[in-house]
Amino acid sequence: MSLSSAFASELTWPDYDAAVQNGQTPILIPIGSMEQHGHHMPLHVDVLLPAEFARRVAVEIGALVAPPFTYGYKSHQKSGGGNHLPGTTSLDGATLVSALKDVVKEFARHGVRKICLVNGHFENSWFIVEGIDLALRELRWDGVTDVKVVVLSYWDFVHKEAIEKLYPAGFQGWDVEHGGVLETSLMLALYPHLVQLERAVDHPAATFPPYDVYPVKPEWTPSSGTLSSPKEASVEKGHILLDVCTEGIVNALRAEFG
Amino acid sequence: MSLSSAFASELTWPDYDAAVQNGQTPILIPIGSMEQHGHHMPLHVDVLLPAEFARRVAVEIGALVAPPFTYGYKSHQKSGGGNHLPGTTSLDGATLVSALKDVVKEFARHGVRKICLVNGHFENSWFIVEGIDLALRELRWDGVTDVKVVVLSYWDFVHKEAIEKLYPAGFQGWDVEHGGVLETSLMLALYPHLVQLERAVDHPAATFPPYDVYPVKPEWTPSSGTLSSPKEASVEKGHILLDVCTEGIVNALRAEFG
Amino acid sequence: MSLSSAFASELTWPDYDAAVQNGQTPILIPIGSMEQHGHHMPLHVDVLLPAEFARRVAVEIGALVAPPFTYGYKSHQKSGGGNHLPGTTSLDGATLVSALKDVVKEFARHGVRKICLVNGHFENSWFIVEGIDLALRELRWDGVTDVKVVVLSYWDFVHKEAIEKLYPAGFQGWDVEHGGVLETSLMLALYPHLVQLERAVDHPAATFPPYDVYPVKPEWTPSSGTLSSPKEASVEKGHILLDVCTEGIVNALRAEFG
Amino acid sequence: MSLSSAFASELTWPDYDAAVQNGQTPILIPIGSMEQHGHHMPLHVDVLLPAEFARRVAVEIGALVAPPFTYGYKSHQKSGGGNHLPGTTSLDGATLVSALKDVVKEFARHGVRKICLVNGHFENSWFIVEGIDLALRELRWDGVTDVKVVVLSYWDFVHKEAIEKLYPAGFQGWDVEHGGVLETSLMLALYPHLVQLERAVDHPAATFPPYDVYPVKPEWTPSSGTLSSPKEASVEKGHILLDVCTEGIVNALRAEFG
Amino acid sequence: MSLSSAFASELTWPDYDAAVQNGQTPILIPIGSMEQHGHHMPLHVDVLLPAEFARRVAVEIGALVAPPFTYGYKSHQKSGGGNHLPGTTSLDGATLVSALKDVVKEFARHGVRKICLVNGHFENSWFIVEGIDLALRELRWDGVTDVKVVVLSYWDFVHKEAIEKLYPAGFQGWDVEHGGVLETSLMLALYPHLVQLERAVDHPAATFPPYDVYPVKPEWTPSSGTLSSPKEASVEKGHILLDVCTEGIVNALRAEFG
Amino acid sequence: MSLSSAFASELTWPDYDAAVQNGQTPILIPIGSMEQHGHHMPLHVDVLLPAEFARRVAVEIGALVAPPFTYGYKSHQKSGGGNHLPGTTSLDGATLVSALKDVVKEFARHGVRKICLVNGHFENSWFIVEGIDLALRELRWDGVTDVKVVVLSYWDFVHKEAIEKLYPAGFQGWDVEHGGVLETSLMLALYPHLVQLERAVDHPAATFPPYDVYPVKPEWTPSSGTLSSPKEASVEKGHILLDVCTEGIVNALRAEFG
Repeated sequence: MSLSSAFASELTWPDYDAAVQNGQTPILIPIGSMEQHGHHMPLHVDVLLPAEFARRVAVEIGALVAPPFTYGYKSHQKSGGGNHLPGTTSLDGATLVSALKDVVKEFARHGVRKICLVNGHFENSWFIVEGIDLALRELRWDGVTDVKVVVLSYWDFVHKEAIEKLYPAGFQGWDVEHGGVLETSLMLALYPHLVQLERAVDHPAATFPPYDVYPVKPEWTPSSGTLSSPKEASVEKGHILLDVCTEGIVNALRAEFG
Repeated sequence: MSLSSAFASELTWPDYDAAVQNGQTPILIPIGSMEQHGHHMPLHVDVLLPAEFARRVAVEIGALVAPPFTYGYKSHQKSGGGNHLPGTTSLDGATLVSALKDVVKEFARHGVRKICLVNGHFENSWFIVEGIDLALRELRWDGVTDVKVVVLSYWDFVHKEAIEKLYPAGFQGWDVEHGGVLETSLMLALYPHLVQLERAVDHPAATFPPYDVYPVKPEWTPSSGTLSSPKEASVEKGHILLDVCTEGIVNALRAEFG
Repeated sequence: MSLSSAFASELTWPDYDAAVQNGQTPILIPIGSMEQHGHHMPLHVDVLLPAEFARRVAVEIGALVAPPFTYGYKSHQKSGGGNHLPGTTSLDGATLVSALKDVVKEFARHGVRKICLVNGHFENSWFIVEGIDLALRELRWDGVTDVKVVVLSYWDFVHKEAIEKLYPAGFQGWDVEHGGVLETSLMLALYPHLVQLERAVDHPAATFPPYDVYPVKPEWTPSSGTLSSPKEASVEKGHILLDVCTEGIVNALRAEFG
Repeated sequence: MSLSSAFASELTWPDYDAAVQNGQTPILIPIGSMEQHGHHMPLHVDVLLPAEFARRVAVEIGALVAPPFTYGYKSHQKSGGGNHLPGTTSLDGATLVSALKDVVKEFARHGVRKICLVNGHFENSWFIVEGIDLALRELRWDGVTDVKVVVLSYWDFVHKEAIEKLYPAGFQGWDVEHGGVLETSLMLALYPHLVQLERAVDHPAATFPPYDVYPVKPEWTPSSGTLSSPKEASVEKGHILLDVCTEGIVNALRAEFG
Repeated sequence: MSLSSAFASELTWPDYDAAVQNGQTPILIPIGSMEQHGHHMPLHVDVLLPAEFARRVAVEIGALVAPPFTYGYKSHQKSGGGNHLPGTTSLDGATLVSALKDVVKEFARHGVRKICLVNGHFENSWFIVEGIDLALRELRWDGVTDVKVVVLSYWDFVHKEAIEKLYPAGFQGWDVEHGGVLETSLMLALYPHLVQLERAVDHPAATFPPYDVYPVKPEWTPSSGTLSSPKEASVEKGHILLDVCTEGIVNALRAEFG
Repeated sequence: MSLSSAFASELTWPDYDAAVQNGQTPILIPIGSMEQHGHHMPLHVDVLLPAEFARRVAVEIGALVAPPFTYGYKSHQKSGGGNHLPGTTSLDGATLVSALKDVVKEFARHGVRKICLVNGHFENSWFIVEGIDLALRELRWDGVTDVKVVVLSYWDFVHKEAIEKLYPAGFQGWDVEHGGVLETSLMLALYPHLVQLERAVDHPAATFPPYDVYPVKPEWTPSSGTLSSPKEASVEKGHILLDVCTEGIVNALRAEFG
């Protein structure tokens, strides 16, 4: 079947219904956040990126992209700067869990049996897991036991070879990539008008002690809000990332969804 | 202050922060749904329309538009065809209430003191009210008592004169306007590529008894999923609606927010 | 079977059990509120009226009336004056939803398969819907799929002919009927000793802008707490309403419950 | 001040407001249940009795009686026969807790500072305690710290002298008084038309092992649903109970509320 | 099968699995609290005692003891001194209910079909009941209907003969035994190093009116925190209690679990 | 002050109160789980280890150890083998969040102002964060804003030098250390009688694709339940770990708590 759009929400219901009712068409749900991303990027980076990865993958494998989750779990100081920062607009864990649970169950009601959560905001991770667990539990109570859910964060598909190209001076870890080379390069490749690289603040990667403190200690977060410098970001790196992650996710979903 | 975008999510955090921290810039939050809208319109009509009204109003009054709520409360048979239909993807009431509560509180944390919920999906109405009530309660516990929240559904601003122009053959009421002249005209004016008017099903306006039945009786809903015919929709009517509702909302927010 | 009372709570359990265990006897559950109703009526108008309609209908169709819900959802400014008023004593939405869910499930456990929620307080409407949806979901998990629930608000059965008799000077809409001609006439016909018509405040029907504001603006609500004048209420109108609504509900339940 | 009724719900809001706004008038909230009470008594014994005690006490001390809670917590096998029985219609614990919390907070909003929960259903006890604790917590967050709540079950005021008169052959304990002499005598004194003593089943008091089993073992409960025989109930005993408990509660509330 | 330990948590998973998967081995779950127990005993009396009873019973009947619940419901003034006291560290009712529900369901997932809750803290009682009810409900939704749960508090197995030996001067009731002869004697017999009898405060048993007041009236609780004097406690009485309660529980579980 | 025990639960309330009421004594709360740990270790490794680290640290810095959380969040396939395995007994996320919230608030009520969560089960991490966030929010509503909470997992204090000694053949990452060298060495050093090293299964470290699948794919987890081989574990390595982690945590808490 040839669909007029990879976005489920752009279809009429008869077209959507025809696509999903036999359970063969996967649904990819982008899960983002509204979160500060430094002086040089907008607040919805974590929505735009997983939504675009989902779209690219959907086109490849004949899947549909669900409307994104536009708000996510609270920013963690050591991976997103902290939830005390301006612009960061977050949900309680229970809210995110419930929203995911509800939406997964609704797609299953439509006949969908292959669901992929495409996460763009690290802090969502465990609440996504819980939302899926509760959704599958309730689906089981409804006699539905054949739904398969894949959860992934796109950056986990950046393999070693790519890392070497992206970070020739050495890789600091995904945790401090908040607003750094990874996200900035992707945004430059995809939405250059939303990046103001000239405002980016150059600073050493943030370092943190091996524990957390609450309430957060604002002085631990660089004043820019980023955790590593985006100065080495480039359009080219963005394309490498787009290719590597899209290919990785496509392969993963082909392996799992057939 | 001149902002680069009416969408809060397109701003960097320093720009967002500068705009909102003194409490004078209103935030408009579009609340939509993923819901079937007949054979001729896509599933996210209820997101696109309030988001666009919010944008137009924001530009007029110097406000910002928050990321939309992309999922809403369950479709009601007599105003949306029913939640049993394919494509309709809904949240439990408690989920929507919590999500709204969380987001309103976060904006208040940033300094926002003027919030407008711009609703595009009738069934959200009461859960929006509850979400606001709980948010204001918890803000009060935090010592914040000066947040003002306006709630509106854009169609409530269509005045009698406009109704006469839009429905020369007589107006059936907003409840059966699901997928009908109102929404279709607006979509034609704004997103014509997403409307397939040739697939629209012409049928008399649905009539219902003065009560509801659960589980829903599928035979009560026209098989198209619309509750009245969109055949009389037009680009011109869409522009009338855009003008009338935008003006009405602008005036309302000027009256309330100063 | 001839029961000694239309009120389920006045039966012994063997009599109740004999009546309901085969699923043929409907249960009608009045859902009210404790809410101010102006200077001339008591706080439990919204309990007394649906309970009496339920009783009359039960007698006609051989149903039973469950104990009423004596507290309801928060009063809305444009339909009940607002929840800031003295005497108005309301539940959070989630509380009302849970209570309804629990009670519907218990009646189903007894064998009841025909349930009618008889609402007397407008603001309960959507939380009733959610309560039923959750109850039917959990009953489904228990393998019970043959429960049918009808939801109604008694005033929705007042047909056009009756409206013309009741409001010869023109009808303003049910929303401003709070403490007005409808409720006052019914109370005069049923419980005249609880009405102090001489204290009723005459005022034009309240008018509101097409949006809501929170916290409520007390000055929008007439100081009496009523939204339209009860001065034209009468015993005769009360009897018209009793007859029209009872007949309408009886017909509806006969149609749905056989 | 002289009120026209002891029932808060029978007052107009100005009268209610005048009575409570200075915090001196106590509110008594009867908490009941819908529960089987043997072959000889109706299902709302646990509502009628605390409501009447509340009314009598209110008249004595100048208090008001709130609308009763008509549904309560699940019947326990060893004090109410078990929640598996027909007619017994119960709430989950969390529902009862929330409802109490909401209502206590609303009365406090009106200005009430003296609240008494008058319990008529043993199984409600701990959920009442939790509801009060949560209400006082949230009131504290609102800066309200001067609300005083008394909780009581009317039978706890039956003193030793009365017990000797009521149970000359020996007292078995309140736990097996379900549907027995206590409740039946009170109903005979107050609502004789609702008692069918001729249908009462005479049986030895139920005895239970010192533990509970779930799911309940139906064979542990006498088939009548009562846990002790009501045969020795009488109008005279009912009047003794009315006098003793009313006096006890009046004294308690005078001591606590001044 | 001979297990290396009565404590499930001390087994490897293959040994645990072999023991429980056929449903024949009961699991005993001690439910305690962290609560003040006077000047002479530590805060975890209510964990140590049910855990040891569970262990002794498990050894006798071939059961396993689950990890104890180390926190319990709020201390009640008339049975534990009140939750305002230092050291007392309690859960909300809903938390305890959820924790029990989750754990019972997990043991059932492992194959366990015989579960005994061994309570050591009076105030847990009703929340244990609710937790079990909800667990069995959800297990039923999963098609599991053969789990049997026994709930007990160890002191309920102290029979009249033992009471006469333990309290030769007269028994005041279990409610005021908080930190008194019962618990102190058991601790002396089991954990003498944790008892500082010389610091015990001798005082008459606390007496309370037949109602509760919230917030608690601290002056009602003896300043020691105990509700009766532990002075008559002894190692010998501890052994009597150990024997009597262990035997009683063993007999109960043999009767129920076969 | 010299306390008789590092365990708060072993103190009398006057001793506990004296220690904590001025806010200077930190409380360390071990958070564990009941989870399979291979063929060679018991189910409560994740309780024993953080409890012992907490004890050692408490002795060093003059803190107290709270009763451990004996159940934790669901085991994740890629860090604990998966929650489908026998013996693993887990809580829903919301339950763990609520329990932590309640307990943190109670300690704050006692006067504690320095709290450290000592985590022993990776999957607890995010729910601990949420529990703390909610606790601090509610404490703030109570006017308490000076509580400081440190969260840590003991293994995060193993520095590079130690890793080189512990894993001379190369370190695979903490994620696959479930039941491997780290935990086994610690158990050998502390509780050798609970380790049956001869039953340990030697296998290569588990490898997983960069995504998760639900329901879990049991074939991804080594049949032993461990994710890497414990064969290289030793008492000596255990002592290295004890020293390194204890020292690291002591330094961290001295830095944060003064």
